[in-house]
Formats: sequence, structure tokens, C-alpha cells
Amino acid sequence: MAEAPQPEAAIAAWRDALGEHAVDADGAALDRYARSTQPQGTRPCCVLYPTTLDHLRAILQVAVEQHVPVYPISCGKNWGYGDACAPADGMAIVDCSRMNRILEVNVELGYAVVEPGVTQQQLFERVRREAPGFWVDCTGAGPDASVLGNALERGFGHTPYGDHVRSSCGMEVMLADGRVLRTGFGHYPGARAAHAYPYGVGPMLDGLFTQSNLGIVTQLGVWLYPAPEAFRFFFIKVEEEDRLAPLIEALRPLRLHGVLNSAVHIGNDLRIISSLRRYPWAEAHGATPLPDALRDALRREAGVGAWNVSGTLAGTRGQVRAAAKALRAAVRGLGRVIFVDDAKLAWGKRAAALLGMFGLGRVLARQLEALEPNYGLLKGIPTNEPLRGAQWRVRDGGEDLIDPLDAHCGLLWLSPVLPMRGADARDLLDITAPLFARHGFDLLVTFTLLNERSMTAILNVAFDKRRSEECAASAACYGEVMAAFREHGFIPYRLGPAGLDHWTDPGDPFWSAACQIKAALDPHGILAPGRYIPHT
Amino acid sequence: MAEAPQPEAAIAAWRDALGEHAVDADGAALDRYARSTQPQGTRPCCVLYPTTLDHLRAILQVAVEQHVPVYPISCGKNWGYGDACAPADGMAIVDCSRMNRILEVNVELGYAVVEPGVTQQQLFERVRREAPGFWVDCTGAGPDASVLGNALERGFGHTPYGDHVRSSCGMEVMLADGRVLRTGFGHYPGARAAHAYPYGVGPMLDGLFTQSNLGIVTQLGVWLYPAPEAFRFFFIKVEEEDRLAPLIEALRPLRLHGVLNSAVHIGNDLRIISSLRRYPWAEAHGATPLPDALRDALRREAGVGAWNVSGTLAGTRGQVRAAAKALRAAVRGLGRVIFVDDAKLAWGKRAAALLGMFGLGRVLARQLEALEPNYGLLKGIPTNEPLRGAQWRVRDGGEDLIDPLDAHCGLLWLSPVLPMRGADARDLLDITAPLFARHGFDLLVTFTLLNERSMTAILNVAFDKRRSEECAASAACYGEVMAAFREHGFIPYRLGPAGLDHWTDPGDPFWSAACQIKAALDPHGILAPGRYIPHT
Repeated sequence: MAEAPQPEAAIAAWRDALGEHAVDADGAALDRYARSTQPQGTRPCCVLYPTTLDHLRAILQVAVEQHVPVYPISCGKNWGYGDACAPADGMAIVDCSRMNRILEVNVELGYAVVEPGVTQQQLFERVRREAPGFWVDCTGAGPDASVLGNALERGFGHTPYGDHVRSSCGMEVMLADGRVLRTGFGHYPGARAAHAYPYGVGPMLDGLFTQSNLGIVTQLGVWLYPAPEAFRFFFIKVEEEDRLAPLIEALRPLRLHGVLNSAVHIGNDLRIISSLRRYPWAEAHGATPLPDALRDALRREAGVGAWNVSGTLAGTRGQVRAAAKALRAAVRGLGRVIFVDDAKLAWGKRAAALLGMFGLGRVLARQLEALEPNYGLLKGIPTNEPLRGAQWRVRDGGEDLIDPLDAHCGLLWLSPVLPMRGADARDLLDITAPLFARHGFDLLVTFTLLNERSMTAILNVAFDKRRSEECAASAACYGEVMAAFREHGFIPYRLGPAGLDHWTDPGDPFWSAACQIKAALDPHGILAPGRYIPHT
Repeated sequence: MAEAPQPEAAIAAWRDALGEHAVDADGAALDRYARSTQPQGTRPCCVLYPTTLDHLRAILQVAVEQHVPVYPISCGKNWGYGDACAPADGMAIVDCSRMNRILEVNVELGYAVVEPGVTQQQLFERVRREAPGFWVDCTGAGPDASVLGNALERGFGHTPYGDHVRSSCGMEVMLADGRVLRTGFGHYPGARAAHAYPYGVGPMLDGLFTQSNLGIVTQLGVWLYPAPEAFRFFFIKVEEEDRLAPLIEALRPLRLHGVLNSAVHIGNDLRIISSLRRYPWAEAHGATPLPDALRDALRREAGVGAWNVSGTLAGTRGQVRAAAKALRAAVRGLGRVIFVDDAKLAWGKRAAALLGMFGLGRVLARQLEALEPNYGLLKGIPTNEPLRGAQWRVRDGGEDLIDPLDAHCGLLWLSPVLPMRGADARDLLDITAPLFARHGFDLLVTFTLLNERSMTAILNVAFDKRRSEECAASAACYGEVMAAFREHGFIPYRLGPAGLDHWTDPGDPFWSAACQIKAALDPHGILAPGRYIPHT
């Protein structure tokens, strides 16, 4: 924007338009919003809390008049990818968490329509009450994370509806000039199939509003997963580090043929261990990354393999039985498949309690403790459990805080997508491991078989935000890994602010077209400038 | 475009750039391209046959310089939705049928990459040869129809990969100014998962290039369906016309839970009969629509029900067995389910031949004759058979021509999407039937359970192109039905040129945004003006 922003005038105008209680420019509030899991956060000029479309429209109008860019967030729980922070200092955060109506739950067709502030917990409870035949597909971002926000970031969950792009249907979007458009069939009055058929008439615009800054999505239709007749959680412990490639080769045909129809996770030892405990600073005498001997000890203590596969089988009883058989056959010689269902989980808890009376069963108890919330998550019950891993490298544990910001967690996700082939996974590890080690970080990694043909590797650079040397090392490590990904054709499915420059060359026709669309729809550039689409 | 088009100069320039053999302005050729199944076709100023991206770029440059808009087609088999005709006279048809390379067939991940001219037959043969573990999902548009063209129109086929938007992954697109962009990960050099993961980084632009005029798609990644272990075709004959609503209610839970995982078709008696024979002009003494008594007689002769369900069960043997059982239970009291597999089809043909020796089995033989190509289609073998229905109202049969244009077929598809609920289907028929009858047309209708929550009703206004009164009546009927659809919230999934004005109000923020994007990407308006996006 050519003209100088006038934040004071903007704040006054926003107070007039929205009321005192919807505008916060208090220093402490701004400090709170400036916190980030990234090495460096950004500080807004104020935080706005709209509750209606009229509020949003007024916010955008003032933004244009006073040249103050705005940064809309849903619930601000974009952990490890920028959290609630704008790409630059001085923007107004538009916190949409008070726009939290669930506008419809349709029990015949199995969908809900949500506003940005609707949390995973809120939707879970409403669906459990009103549509008990359906499950919400939840992510590991916790009960307070926004359903809509995750879908716009193209996040993924754990049921067969885990691809949140595919399970979204019908958006309401406010453009920078205050126009409200509806995608799909939704812009035709009385359209009957607006949330049952995703494509509409003419060009599909929905994709434009994911991972972008082209509009503020104010409603989203979300398909609910019909609760299956049968459901089993499975777990495969693979002891040898070098069996990853054959493991993936063995699983691909099952995923491709739909025998496995949900996301399957393959986590390494440290990824699992990091969800059970923090880094053993004392035992390691402060050294990083984790020495091999200590790693082996932790692995034994936790009872985990070099690779740990988890996933679900869901469908009719006959389907699940057949899938279990096929899975066992496919991984024979790689690891034993353990199945858990509701009955077995209840039994295991009783057994662990009993063994505990005799001082036995510690490993079993710890495994079950870690398992239960994750098992629930696979059935669409939100949990904070997966967030614990972010505390891996935080020193002096003290309180066990859930909010990564309260717990001083530094967290940079690296999430490249690979073809579902063993050799690609191997390549990724060979390229990445030395870079992590050089910067003193442990390679915590999960491969998620996301669709029938590809998998996302989720690597995290976990660090202690209070240590400036760790912040610097994390940034350096992240940048080097991104550059290596680029060189080797591993492209991330999602980016935090530090990653953008690696992937958004404005000279690339893809990005130049995106920039043209941005200029057409937001000529003043007041909507989240620098968010995914390069700021030209 | 403000300035007057200079077709003569343009044709000369195109001849210079592309060579004589790639430009056809011969009167007979233009007449041929002006033919249409619509009541009124349009005549181009010339036809261009590019074979390379450089040709395409030169075509667009001349178009801008000489103010002659161009209309790209893939293979031009968009039957009943405008065929190969541009929205207006005088445009240059860019016939991309010579750009027909299959650039990759990946047998590990199960995809192919095709150019616009690749036909269903061509891809089918290549996949059968190089990737026999996979099927191509084909539509009923015939062996010569373009794979890419159908996907861009958001067409659908018959296997679990029938939703061609969902089974496409990665586009190459030329914009109006000659820039070539790649969607998904494809614009990053060496991206490994470009055709395995569809979403890329940042905004998804793919949807913009479907049902639109925003670019020329020059390559498309197409996912191939992994041939299932078991496959059964099923058929349900429902005798009573009024059982449609309970039938749909019975099938919805199966489709929602994925027990049925392919498109299921529910055709009325006339839809099936029209694929077996033409309108009985003599018996009806020239009257239209078909008198009830005659309709009953034809129904008995053909051995079809008031509603005729067909679809497939595919998966592991266990899955198919379980699905068959669930299907039988669900439709108990509505109709008997008949299953056909490869073995049974072979047996039936032998039986019919045997019965034929004794003058028996005529109905069986006719049913099998109609069945076999359709059965093949469900397994991805392209066929012209479904096109025969377009000849329903054409008089003096004579030759049995496959090309609807050679056969003088008039054809206007009406294809509204409904929520998958019996009451909605009932409403649609109640609203539509009187309008068809008033204009002397028979209601040929299929409900296709397209995804887990919605179904597309495919209605066709079939008429004889040589009868001007039928052309006029078809246009009037089509317009009235579209208006009724609009009033009652039934929105079409796809449009022919006559339908556009009903659905593209430029005052609607959806369309105004689409127009802004069009203006940004094609400021001279030379790319298919009037195709879906309103010409402002």
C-alpha cells in the first residue's frame, strides 16, 4: 500500500462501528497476540472481534480508508504454522472466534454448516447430540481449534473423511470490498443441494479461498462421516529402522484399493516418545541431538519400535474383517499387527490397573495412557494429547501446560508431500537427517498415507522459545531443509510464514496469475497481505 | 471487444504461423462445424488445428491482434450441451484433437497424463496394455470423446472414480496471454507428487479452469481406478411408478456408508426403451408425447420396469458379498436384485442363442444386447451404445448412425442436482412432467446417485433436427423447465448454451467475481467469450 497506515484513526473508527467491546488495543492484549511458536512473532496494532457480516464489512471499509491491513483468523490455533500472527507487524487481527454459530446439522444428508469460530469440541458435542449416527473428522490441533480454519488450511484428520478439502461443501465468503459470495450452488436462492454437491455451475471458486488471502470465509459446509458398523484401531511395531521402505511398499496396494480407507500414520520412535515425555536433558547432560544410546533406552522404556504404524479399519463388519486379514498378510515379516476396539481397550485398562497393584504393567499402563485419547481422536473425539509433543525440547517442565504458547514451545512444522513409495521416504530421510543433526535437532517424523497415492511427511523442529540460540538454530535448520526439499522435489502441503519465500516466486506463472487475481479482488491489498500469495 | 474483428487477416496470419494444413476456412468444413444437436448451431470463421504449445500461443496472439475470439475444443463431442459449437458465430474453433499424446502412464501410483485430444478409446487401450491392473473411468459419450474435455465439464463415469473432478490431479494451462501455468505441485521443477496429490501450495486454481473460459487446459493428470478383486453388475426392476421415493430412501444409506461406492443409475421405462428403439411413430399415428397404452406395450415388450436401477459392486470378494447382501435387504419389497458378473454374462449369451434356435428368448436376447456394452462401460470399456438414445425421436430410421449429428439428432440435456432424498425426486417429476407433455415431449429421465449425498437427474429433450416445429418446441420446453428449476431450487450441474442466461446473473457476487477474474486473466476477451462466464 502506497499510503501510510493510520492505525489510531482506524482504531477509533472501528470502535465507532463495532462498539468498545469488539476492539482491543490494550498493550497486554497485543503482547498476547504477538506470541508465537515461530522463532519470531509479529505484533498487531489491535484486535477486532466481529460477530456479524456487517461488522466484517465495516472492518474492511475502515481498513481501506485508513490503509491499515487486516488479518482474519478463525480461532488462532494454527500451531507451528504461524499461530494467530499476521505476516507483518502493525496489522489489525480480525479474530472471528465470536462468529461461532452452527447454522445447520442435517441428519438425513450428514452435514453441518459452521462459522469460523466453531471449535472441534463444539461441533463434536452438537453432532453427538443431534446426529448420533455421524462422526466429526477431527485433527490433532485440540478441542479449541476451528473446524473451518483447518479446512481452509487444507488440514487433515483421521477418518475416511480426513481430507478436509474433499469433505467441505459450500462456502460463504466476504470479499475485500464487502461483497458476500456463496460458492457451489449456494448463490442460487433456495438451492436444495447447496451442501450436498460441491461444484456449482461455472468455475469453481472454492479453491481460491484455501491457503490464500482472497476473501474471508464466513460459513462452510462440512460433511459428517457416517459412523461405521465396525471400527478397529490397528498398531504395528516395526523394530528395524531400515524396514520403512518395504513397509510403505506393502501398505500402498491396500491404500490404493481402499482396503485401508483412512489416513495411516507411520511415526518414528522419537515422534511417539515426544508425546510421552520431554527431552531427557539431565541424562543427556544438555547435549543435543539425542545420543544414540539414550535414544535406544527411551525406545525400550516406551516399548516403541523404530517405526510405529497406526490407523483404523472402518466399514461393515465383513469389510473390517476382510481388511484386517489383508493387512496382516501384507505386513507379514515386517511387524505384528495389534488390533484394538472398544471392548479390548476397556479390558486393557482393567488389566493395567490390576498389574499396577503388583508394581507390574508400567509399560502397558503408559501405552494405554497415550493410546486412549488418540483412539478417541480416530473416532472424531477431539483431544489436546497430540499437542504435548510440542513440549519435547522445553526445559524445566514444571506445569504440564496444554497451550503451546503458555508452555514456551517453539515449533516449526515441515510437511512435504511424497509419492507413496518406499524409495521416496528413504530419500527424504537421507536428505533431512544430517541437516537436523547438524543444527542439534532430533528428527521427529510421521509419514501419513493421506490419499490413495501420496503421503505427507510431518517433521517438526521443536525448540525452547526462551533460548535465543535455539530460536536461531531452528530458523537456520528450517531454511536449509526447505531449500533441500525444493532441490529434491519434495513440496510442502502447507506453509508457515518462514517458508513462504521458498515457494512463492512471483515470476512463476502460477503465482503471477494468483497475484493478478489478488489485485482484481483486493485492489487496495488490505486483506492479509503476504499470506501465501506474494505481496507485489 | 470494442474493435471490429478482422477474420481475413487473422486467417492469413494463422496460416503463416501454423502452416496451411492447420487452418481450415473451407465452406464445407465450416458447415460441418456449424452442425449441432442444439436447436440452433453457430458457424465459425475458421477451424485451427494446433499440435504444440507454440501453435496455441501463436493462435492467441493473432486473436488479440485481429480481435477474433477463439473457441478451444478438445474433441468436440460435447453432445447435447453445445457439441463443438462456439457460443456465437464468427469465432475461430481451436480444435485440439491433434494434441493427443498420453505423456505418462504410472503403474505404481495409478495415473495417466493426457493432452486434450486423447480419446477414451485411446486411453483405454494404452492402459490395458501398460497398466493392466487399472481401469479408465469412461463416460457414455463414446470412444471418440476426450478424456480431458469431459473432466473439464465436470462429467461423470461409472466406477468409484466416476467423479472426474476428484479423479483429476494436476493441470497444465495456457492463459490468454500465452503464459503456461501448472496447478498443484506441477509448477515446481522436479516435483515428485505432482500427479499424486492434487492441492499444491497456496490457492487452488484448478477449479477455475473447469466450466469456464479462463484458460486452455493442455495437460491433465487422471487417476486410474485399481481393478477390483471382485466386480458385479446389479439390476433392479421396480414395477410401480410411485415407488421411486421409497427406492431412493432405501438406497441413500448404502451410498452414504459406501456400501455402494459407484454411481447408481435409476432410469425410467422410456429412458431404457429409447436405447433399444426409436419412437413408434406409426403406432402412435404421429402423436406426441407417447400415449399411455403404447407406453405400457413398449414397456412389456422390452421387459423393463417403471424404474430400472443399475450399478456395480466392486471391491474385495468379501466386500462385494457383504454389499450384495445389504443391497438385497435394503430394497426388499421394492424389487428383486439381479446380479451379473463375467461368468453369468457369458452364460446368458449362450442361453439366449440356444433359445433363439427355438424362436424363444427374444426378450432375453434384446436385454443382453443392450446390457453387454453397458456392462463393459461400467468396467471402463468405452462404447457408443448410450448415444443411441439421442435418436429416439428421429424419423425414418434408415441407417443406424452413431454420430448424433449425422443422424439428425436434436438433443438438449437438462441435468439438475438434487439432494439424495425421495421427496426431492418426486417434486422434480411433478414439476417437470407437465411441461414436457405440454410441448409434446416424452420425459426420459435417469437419476444418478453421483456422490454420497446428491443425485443428478438427467432429462433429455430429444427431437428431430430436420423439423423446425420440433426445434422450436424443444427450445420453448427447455426454457420453461429451466425457469421452473430455478424457482424450485434444482440447479444443473452442467449447461449448454441455451441454459446460460438462466444461471449467470452478473449482478450475483459469485458471477461478478468470476467476471473480475476473467477480465484480469483475459483483458481482451478473446478466449471463448460467453462460455459459462458472462460476457460483460
